[in-house]
Amino acid sequence: MPELRKSPIMERWVIISTERGKRPDDFKREKLPPKGGFCPFCNGNEDKTPPEVLAYRDPKSLPDKEGWSVRVVPNKFPALQIEGDLDKRGDGIYDMMRGVGAHEVLIESPDHSKNLQYLSDSHVESIFWALRERCLDLKRDSRFRYILVFKNWGEEAGASLEHSHIQIIATPIIPKRAIEELTGAKFHYDLKERCIFCDILMQEIKEEKRIVYQNDHFIAIAPYAARFPFETWVLPLKHISAFEQTPTEWFPQLADIMKNVLLRLDIALDEPPFNFIIHTSPCNQPDLDYYHWHIEIMPKLTRVAGFEWGSGFYINPTPPEDAARILRDIDIELVTANNKEEQKVEEK
Amino acid sequence: MPELRKSPIMERWVIISTERGKRPDDFKREKLPPKGGFCPFCNGNEDKTPPEVLAYRDPKSLPDKEGWSVRVVPNKFPALQIEGDLDKRGDGIYDMMRGVGAHEVLIESPDHSKNLQYLSDSHVESIFWALRERCLDLKRDSRFRYILVFKNWGEEAGASLEHSHIQIIATPIIPKRAIEELTGAKFHYDLKERCIFCDILMQEIKEEKRIVYQNDHFIAIAPYAARFPFETWVLPLKHISAFEQTPTEWFPQLADIMKNVLLRLDIALDEPPFNFIIHTSPCNQPDLDYYHWHIEIMPKLTRVAGFEWGSGFYINPTPPEDAARILRDIDIELVTANNKEEQKVEEK
Repeated sequence: MPELRKSPIMERWVIISTERGKRPDDFKREKLPPKGGFCPFCNGNEDKTPPEVLAYRDPKSLPDKEGWSVRVVPNKFPALQIEGDLDKRGDGIYDMMRGVGAHEVLIESPDHSKNLQYLSDSHVESIFWALRERCLDLKRDSRFRYILVFKNWGEEAGASLEHSHIQIIATPIIPKRAIEELTGAKFHYDLKERCIFCDILMQEIKEEKRIVYQNDHFIAIAPYAARFPFETWVLPLKHISAFEQTPTEWFPQLADIMKNVLLRLDIALDEPPFNFIIHTSPCNQPDLDYYHWHIEIMPKLTRVAGFEWGSGFYINPTPPEDAARILRDIDIELVTANNKEEQKVEEK
Repeated sequence: MPELRKSPIMERWVIISTERGKRPDDFKREKLPPKGGFCPFCNGNEDKTPPEVLAYRDPKSLPDKEGWSVRVVPNKFPALQIEGDLDKRGDGIYDMMRGVGAHEVLIESPDHSKNLQYLSDSHVESIFWALRERCLDLKRDSRFRYILVFKNWGEEAGASLEHSHIQIIATPIIPKRAIEELTGAKFHYDLKERCIFCDILMQEIKEEKRIVYQNDHFIAIAPYAARFPFETWVLPLKHISAFEQTPTEWFPQLADIMKNVLLRLDIALDEPPFNFIIHTSPCNQPDLDYYHWHIEIMPKLTRVAGFEWGSGFYINPTPPEDAARILRDIDIELVTANNKEEQKVEEK
C-alpha cells in the first residue's frame, strides 16, 4: 500500500511507493516502449488490462472484448489503491495516511495512432461523456475529496504509453494546487461578490487580444500570466463550478473547442508534447459561486529548471498575446476538412 | 524590459519576455550546444561574457582575462534586468510590474569538463565564499526582496550550457515557494516556539534511517516527504536563518558535505542531471527564529507530468529511507582518494 506523506513545513503531500520502490538501476532507461511494440490499450488486447469499469461498445460485443470505442480501466500500476481506509497517523513530527484512492485510465479509441484531436467530433464528445460518468461515480465514494482528470501526451509530457489516453485520479485530500485556486477565487468573491473567472472572461472578451477560439458555450484564451509558451485555457462562458455539472447540451461544443485548440497547437508547434488538466471544484462542493471549472492545456516546450523549482514562479519566453495571435491566425478549415474526409472513408 | 505578471487567481508570478518573444520555430531545437563546441565560460574566452562582477584570480592577472579560479558575471540573457524602477501598475483586473532584478552566473572553474563535486575541497569552499559575497552585495539593493541561488546541471535539469555553473537571481518580490515555506515554518513556531527545521533535525538524528552523511556543522538527509527519488537536503546543524550569516569557519564543512553528497549521487545514479537550490530567508529578514536555511538537491530521474502540475503533489517511487540507505552505504573513500591524486598531479 503506497503512503501519503505530508511535508512538515507546508501543505504538500507526496505519494511514496513503499512496496515496489525503485532502485538506482530502474531509472537508467525510463523511456517509452519502442514504436510498433506490444500495446495493452490496442484493440484485441483487452485481457492485458484490468477489467473495464466503463466502456462504450457495440451492443452485441462482450465486456473486455473487442467492439468498444471508448474504454475506462483501472490503472495496472496505480499511484493510489482503491481498497481500505485512510488510517491517518503521526510519526513523530510527521503526518501520513495510507495511499487510498482511485487511479483509472480512459483509452480514447482502439486506434493506436490517433490522438484525441484527430478523432471525429462525436467520438471526442463521447470521451467527455465517459469522463463525466466516471467523475459522477467516483464522487459517490465518501473517502474521496477531489477527482483529478489529466492527459499526458508525448514522452516529454510524462506519457509512459504512446496510445492516447486520459487519466483519472481520485484523491483522499484536496490537492495543494486546487486549494490555492479555490482560496484565491474565494478571496476575490468575498471582496467583490463576483467570480474571478467570470471577471477574466469579461475582460478577455472586451480586449480580444488573448482569445484563441470561441464557440457558443466555451472560450479558449492564452491566460494573462501564462506560465508556459502557448499555454491555453478553455472555459465555459457561463458560470459553472464543476465539470460534471456542465449542461448535457454543451458537450458537442466542448468537443469542438478541445479539438480545435489542440489542432491549432499541433499545426503551430508541430505536434508538441502536452498536458491538459481539468480544474474543477472538490467532491463535496459541486456548486460554488466563486469557482469556475476549466481546462488548462500546457504544451511542453521548455524545461522546468532550478529557478522554477526554487521560486514557484516561471519564465515564459512567449508573451501570451503573441501566442494567442499565432494560434488564432491559423486556418484550420483545411485540416478539419481533410480530417472529415478521412472519417468518411473510415466509416465506409 | 521583461514584465512580471501576477496570476489574478493566486500568488503566482510569471516573468514574460516581452521583447525577444520566442516564436514557434524557436522551440524546435532547444538542445545543449554540441560537445566540444565554443564555450563562453572557458579559460581564454573571458571577453565573450559581460564584464565580471567578482572573480578570485591570480593577483598578477587582469580583470576579464585569464588567471581566475571562480568568476561571477551578469547573465548575457537575463531573465530580469538590472536597470530601472518597478513601476507597479494594474491592467484591468490584472497586476504587473517591470521585470527588474539581477541575474548573474557563477562560473565554478576555468575547466570545462569538471563539475563542482570533482573540484578540490578548497576550490569548492571558494565557490561558496563567492556566493556569499554576491548575496551580501545584492541584498544592499533595496529593490530586491529575495536572492535565489540555484544550479542546473545536465540538459534534463534545464542547463543551457555544459560548463558547470551556478545562477544567482535577485527578485523584486518574495517567490511563492519561499512564502509558503516561511509561512509554514512561522505557523509551527507560533504554535510551539520551536523552529520546525530544528525539530526535523532532532527526529532525524534520533531515528538515523534518513541520514545520508554528516560532519561537524552540517547534515544531509533524505526528507520524510521527498518529492523526488534520491532528493537530499543539506542543513546546518545549528539554527541559522540566512545562508550568508553562516559562520565563516563552517565553510570548509559546507564544501565537504556538498562534495560528499554530490559524489554519492554520481556513484549511485551514474552522474544524474540535478538541480540544487539554496533556501534562505528574504533580504530584509536576516535573523528569523522560525526559519533555517538549507540546500535542496534534486536529481532529475522522473518526469513531472499532468498529475503533478494539476495537483501540486508528487509521486515518488523511491522511499526516502531506501534512498538514504543506498547513498549512505556507498564507500566514497576510494573515489575521494582518486580525486585527491588527480588534484596533486594538476597542482604539479
